[in-house]
Amino acid sequence: MQSQQIRTDLALEAHESIGDTSSRIHGIDVEEKNYEEDQVFVTTVSVTTKNAAKTLGKPMGTYITIEAPALDEPDEESHREVSTHLSSIVKELIPNFEKEQSILVIGLGNRDVTADSLGPHVIDNLCITRHIIMEYGTAAYDKSKMHSVSSLAPGVMAQNGMETAEIIRGVVEQTSPDVLIVIDSLAARTLHRLNRTIQITDTGIHPGSGVGNHRNALTKESLGVPVIAIGIPTVVDAATIVWDALDDFSNKSDHSIDLHMLQASYDNTLLKELNNMYVTGKDVDAIIKRLSYTVSEALNMTFDDI
Amino acid sequence: MQSQQIRTDLALEAHESIGDTSSRIHGIDVEEKNYEEDQVFVTTVSVTTKNAAKTLGKPMGTYITIEAPALDEPDEESHREVSTHLSSIVKELIPNFEKEQSILVIGLGNRDVTADSLGPHVIDNLCITRHIIMEYGTAAYDKSKMHSVSSLAPGVMAQNGMETAEIIRGVVEQTSPDVLIVIDSLAARTLHRLNRTIQITDTGIHPGSGVGNHRNALTKESLGVPVIAIGIPTVVDAATIVWDALDDFSNKSDHSIDLHMLQASYDNTLLKELNNMYVTGKDVDAIIKRLSYTVSEALNMTFDDI
Amino acid sequence: MQSQQIRTDLALEAHESIGDTSSRIHGIDVEEKNYEEDQVFVTTVSVTTKNAAKTLGKPMGTYITIEAPALDEPDEESHREVSTHLSSIVKELIPNFEKEQSILVIGLGNRDVTADSLGPHVIDNLCITRHIIMEYGTAAYDKSKMHSVSSLAPGVMAQNGMETAEIIRGVVEQTSPDVLIVIDSLAARTLHRLNRTIQITDTGIHPGSGVGNHRNALTKESLGVPVIAIGIPTVVDAATIVWDALDDFSNKSDHSIDLHMLQASYDNTLLKELNNMYVTGKDVDAIIKRLSYTVSEALNMTFDDI
Amino acid sequence: MQSQQIRTDLALEAHESIGDTSSRIHGIDVEEKNYEEDQVFVTTVSVTTKNAAKTLGKPMGTYITIEAPALDEPDEESHREVSTHLSSIVKELIPNFEKEQSILVIGLGNRDVTADSLGPHVIDNLCITRHIIMEYGTAAYDKSKMHSVSSLAPGVMAQNGMETAEIIRGVVEQTSPDVLIVIDSLAARTLHRLNRTIQITDTGIHPGSGVGNHRNALTKESLGVPVIAIGIPTVVDAATIVWDALDDFSNKSDHSIDLHMLQASYDNTLLKELNNMYVTGKDVDAIIKRLSYTVSEALNMTFDDI
Repeated sequence: MQSQQIRTDLALEAHESIGDTSSRIHGIDVEEKNYEEDQVFVTTVSVTTKNAAKTLGKPMGTYITIEAPALDEPDEESHREVSTHLSSIVKELIPNFEKEQSILVIGLGNRDVTADSLGPHVIDNLCITRHIIMEYGTAAYDKSKMHSVSSLAPGVMAQNGMETAEIIRGVVEQTSPDVLIVIDSLAARTLHRLNRTIQITDTGIHPGSGVGNHRNALTKESLGVPVIAIGIPTVVDAATIVWDALDDFSNKSDHSIDLHMLQASYDNTLLKELNNMYVTGKDVDAIIKRLSYTVSEALNMTFDDI
Repeated sequence: MQSQQIRTDLALEAHESIGDTSSRIHGIDVEEKNYEEDQVFVTTVSVTTKNAAKTLGKPMGTYITIEAPALDEPDEESHREVSTHLSSIVKELIPNFEKEQSILVIGLGNRDVTADSLGPHVIDNLCITRHIIMEYGTAAYDKSKMHSVSSLAPGVMAQNGMETAEIIRGVVEQTSPDVLIVIDSLAARTLHRLNRTIQITDTGIHPGSGVGNHRNALTKESLGVPVIAIGIPTVVDAATIVWDALDDFSNKSDHSIDLHMLQASYDNTLLKELNNMYVTGKDVDAIIKRLSYTVSEALNMTFDDI
Repeated sequence: MQSQQIRTDLALEAHESIGDTSSRIHGIDVEEKNYEEDQVFVTTVSVTTKNAAKTLGKPMGTYITIEAPALDEPDEESHREVSTHLSSIVKELIPNFEKEQSILVIGLGNRDVTADSLGPHVIDNLCITRHIIMEYGTAAYDKSKMHSVSSLAPGVMAQNGMETAEIIRGVVEQTSPDVLIVIDSLAARTLHRLNRTIQITDTGIHPGSGVGNHRNALTKESLGVPVIAIGIPTVVDAATIVWDALDDFSNKSDHSIDLHMLQASYDNTLLKELNNMYVTGKDVDAIIKRLSYTVSEALNMTFDDI
Repeated sequence: MQSQQIRTDLALEAHESIGDTSSRIHGIDVEEKNYEEDQVFVTTVSVTTKNAAKTLGKPMGTYITIEAPALDEPDEESHREVSTHLSSIVKELIPNFEKEQSILVIGLGNRDVTADSLGPHVIDNLCITRHIIMEYGTAAYDKSKMHSVSSLAPGVMAQNGMETAEIIRGVVEQTSPDVLIVIDSLAARTLHRLNRTIQITDTGIHPGSGVGNHRNALTKESLGVPVIAIGIPTVVDAATIVWDALDDFSNKSDHSIDLHMLQASYDNTLLKELNNMYVTGKDVDAIIKRLSYTVSEALNMTFDDI
C-alpha cells in the first residue's frame, strides 16, 4: 500500500513503513536503547537532511519515542519509571536548562472529547509558578533559582472560532516564554502502539501533511521560540483500520487484491464517511486519566530540577 | 456475511439484515410512516412470536425507530419536531398515562466517555419533581394532577464495581416507580444511521446477545415494572466497520472473498484487538450535547402533558 | 459605614450607597424604566464627568441594570423575556451593528468553581461562526450578511500563571475583532440582588478599585477596541455580609456601634480570614446553568439579527 | 450564645462549645495525641452515654479528628503523612479487617457544586475491585486474599428527586457489603478549621439535628451494616459567620449585646436570607482536588493492606 494512505503522527511508524533498508537512508539516523529493568524501549530517529524529511514525511529534527507496553495498564506508582525517562528526555531538549527558563506548556485538544483530552488533562496537574514568581520572586518557594511555568489549554477551533495557532501566537507575544512544551493526543497507525508510546520531538507541531511552512504550525519558525512536542497516540484513524484490514487480508490470503482499484472504488463511499471518524477504546477515560498523570508528573519533576 | 458478525442494537437493522422477504416472516409486522414536512420517517417493528424473536435476535415487543437525517446537524430550534414525535411515541408506551404516574428515568452510560454519555446528559436537563411533590404536593406547581419524575445516572461497572442492574433494582425496590424510562447510547451497524436515529422500545434493555432471561437485563420481568428504552446510535463497533469494508469490497469487485476463511484468519489477530474498540466522529461532543437536549425536551414535554 | 468597606461590582449599588441626593449629583444621570408585563426593571446610570466617576468609584460610561426578580427561579421558557431585553441593550452598545462585525466573546472566570463559572458556561452555548465564515464565507449559512463570532474562556491566573488580560490582549492582536463582549460573575452588595440582576456596561472590566488605568483592565484604552461587559452577581463577599449584619444591628438596636473602632479591632482577625471567602447559595449549580442559558440565548439572538 | 445557633458537623467543635469543664462530663472521654514530626494532632472523643450524646448533640460513638494545619497548602507528596494517619484510623474502625471484607464507599455530595464535591472526587480516584474479583477471583490481582471495593456517588436530591438514603439502602440490599465508608463535605463552625481537619466516626451520617432515628440516616441501625463516615469541613454556614462576628464584637468591645434580642430582630430578615447560603474560599477547586487525593490515597492504602 502506498504511503499516502498511511496516516500516522509517529515518526517511528513513518520510518517503519519505508521498509528494511531505511536505517541506511542518508539523513536518517536511528538509535535504539532498551531499558530492560523498566520495560522501556527508547528509539531516537534523527532526520538531518531535507531529502530524508521528504522521504519520511516528517520535518528535520529529533524524534524520540518511548515504548512502554505496561503504560496502558493501571499501576500503583503511576508508571513513575516512564515519567523519569520522559523527564530526562525533555530536560535534554530544553535549551539552557541549567539557567532559569520561562516555560509555557500548551495542552492541545478538546477537553470535551475524551480521546482528545490528554493535553488539557496534563495541564490540570501541572505546578504553575509564573504568577507567584512574578509577584513574590522565587523566595516564595524558598529557592534562589527556579524555572517559571505557565500553561494554556486553548481549546479547539470548533469551540473558539479561532485557529489554535492564532491564540498561541498571541499569548507567546504577550508573555515571551523562553520555550514552549506542547502536549497533544496523536493518531497511531496500528492498534498495538495505542496508549503505550510517547513521542517527544524538538520540531514542534505541523498540522496536516507535516511538511511545509504552514500558517498553523507551532514551530520555532512560526513562534520564534523552541517548541518541544510531547504526544501520545490515543486513536487510530478509522480509514487506517479499514486499509490495514484489507492489506492484511491481501497478504495473508491467496487473493492478490489490487489496492489501487480498491482505493478508487472506495474513495467516494465508505472512506469518505470514515474521514472524520476515529477508533478508540471503551476504557479511554481511565487511560487518559492515567497517561495524563504520568506526563504531568514527568513535567513537574523536570521543572523542579534546577 | 453471517448474522453472528453483525453487531447492532437497532431492531430495524437486524430486520434489514434478514433480507427482502423479511416483512412476510410470521411474527414480524412492519409499519412505516413518512412525515415529509418534518423530514421524519417512523418505522414500527412488532415482534409477536418467540420464533420471530429468535430469527431477529431481539426479544418480543415493539420497536419504533425515528429516522431524522437532519438530527446530526445543528438546528436553532433544537429539532423540536423530532422532540414532538418522540414525545408522542413515549406517551403511547407509558401505561395509564392519563393517571398520575411515578416515572424513574435512568441515564445509562459513562459520563466521562463522550460517545457513551448521552444518558447522563439527558438526565441533567430533566425537570425533576418527585421530591417536591412528596414534600409539598402538586400544589407547589399550581397543579391538581402531575406525574412525579425522578432520575438516576448510575455510572458504569468499571467505576462502581457493581452491575448497573444491581443499582437500579435496589433503587426501584426502594422508590417503587410505576414505570422506568432508560436512555442509552447504542451501537449501529452502519455509519449513515449514526446520530440520526432514535429507537424506542417497550422491551427494556438486554445486555449482550439480546435474548434470554439475563440477570443484568433491565426489563419488566427483572424489575417488576414496565421498562421503556430510548436509544440513539452514537458509535459503530470497530470490528463491524472492518467486516463491512471487506463485504463491500467482495460485492463490488470481481474477487469473491471467502469470508469464512477470512474470519478464521482474523480471529486471532486484528479482530481480537478491535474487540473493545469503537468508531465515532471527531465532533462527538457537539453531537451528544444536541441529541441529549432533543431527548430531554421530548421527555419534559411528555411528563408535563397531563 | 464608609464606602471603603463597600465592595460591589454593581454601579447601581454604588449609586444607592451615596444616598438620596445622588440623582442630583452633577455628572450622574439615572433613568428608570419598568416593563411590568415582563417583571423587568431597567435602570440606566450614565456617568459623564471625572468627578462623578470618582464619587461613584466607577469609570465614566453607561451602566444598564436589568432587575428581574424571577430570574433566580426555574422557568420553562428560560426567561426568554429577559433574554430579549438583554439582547436589545447589547445591540445598542455594539458600534455599527448594522454592518458586519467581528465579535469576540470572552467568558471570564474559573470553570471549576461553580459560582465563578458563568462566563465559561455562556461561551459553551454560543453559536460560533468565525472559522466557518473565514473558510466558506457567509454562503455556508445561506446568508449574504453575517456577524462573525469567536469566543475564548481564558481561565484564571491560578490555573495559567498568566494574567487574563495578557491572554486576551494577545488574542485581540492576532484576530483583530471589531468589538469584545466580556461575561463575568460579579459580587453584589446585598443578598437580594444575587442571581436576579444583570449589569451591562460599555466601560469594560476594571479589576480591583475600578478606577485608574490598570495594566490588567479590559477596556477600549487597553485593548484598542470597544469592550462591552455583561455581569451577573452570583456571590457576596463574606466580609460584606458581616459588615452589613453589624451595620443593620447598629441601626435597629439602641446600641450605637462605633464602626471605626469595630473595623480597627477586626482588621487583624476575622475580616482578614474572610478576605478570600465568599458567600453563595447551595443551589448555585442550577442557578448558574439557567443564568448562563438566558445570557447565551440573548447573545445568539443578537448576533443572528442582521 | 446558645447551642441552637451553633451549626457544626464536627464533634470536636460541639465539644469545645460546651466549655472548659466538658472533659469531665460523664460519658464524654477525650484523648489527644500530638504527632509533632508530622504536624498532625489527633483527638478522639468517645461519647458513651445517652445523656452525653444529648449534651453534645451528637450520637453515641467514637469521633476521631485529625487536625493538620498544612492540609490546605499544596504539597509535593500530597500530604502522604496525613493519608497514613487516616488510613490507620480507618483500618481500626473496620470490623474484622484481617478477613476479606466487601467495602462499599459512598461519595456524598453534589459533583457540580465545587465546595460540595469532595465525596464524588474521592470516589473518582479509588481502586475499584469488586467486579473483577466477582468475575475472575483475587487471582486477577495475583493475590490470595483481598478486600473487595465498590463505590457510588449517588448525587443529591435536587438532581435525582430521591433521598440519598433511598438510593443507598437499595444498593446495600442488592450488593450486601460488609461495611460502608461514607465521604462527605462538612460545615465547620470556624474558618480556621476549614480544609485542615478530617473527622472520622463510626456513627455514620445523621442529617439535620444529628440526634434521633431519622429515616434518612446512614447508620448501622438504618442500613444493617457498620457505617464509617469520613468528613472534611469545606464550608461555614453563612449565618454562623455573622453570629460569630457579633459574638466576637460583643466580647471585644464594651458593648454588651443582648444576643437574644438580636436573634429576635434578625429572625425574619438577614438570617432568613442567609439560611441556604454558605461561605467558602475562592480557591476551593484546588483545595477540593488536593483533599480528595489525600483521602483516596488513604483509602487505597487501607484496602490494599491485607
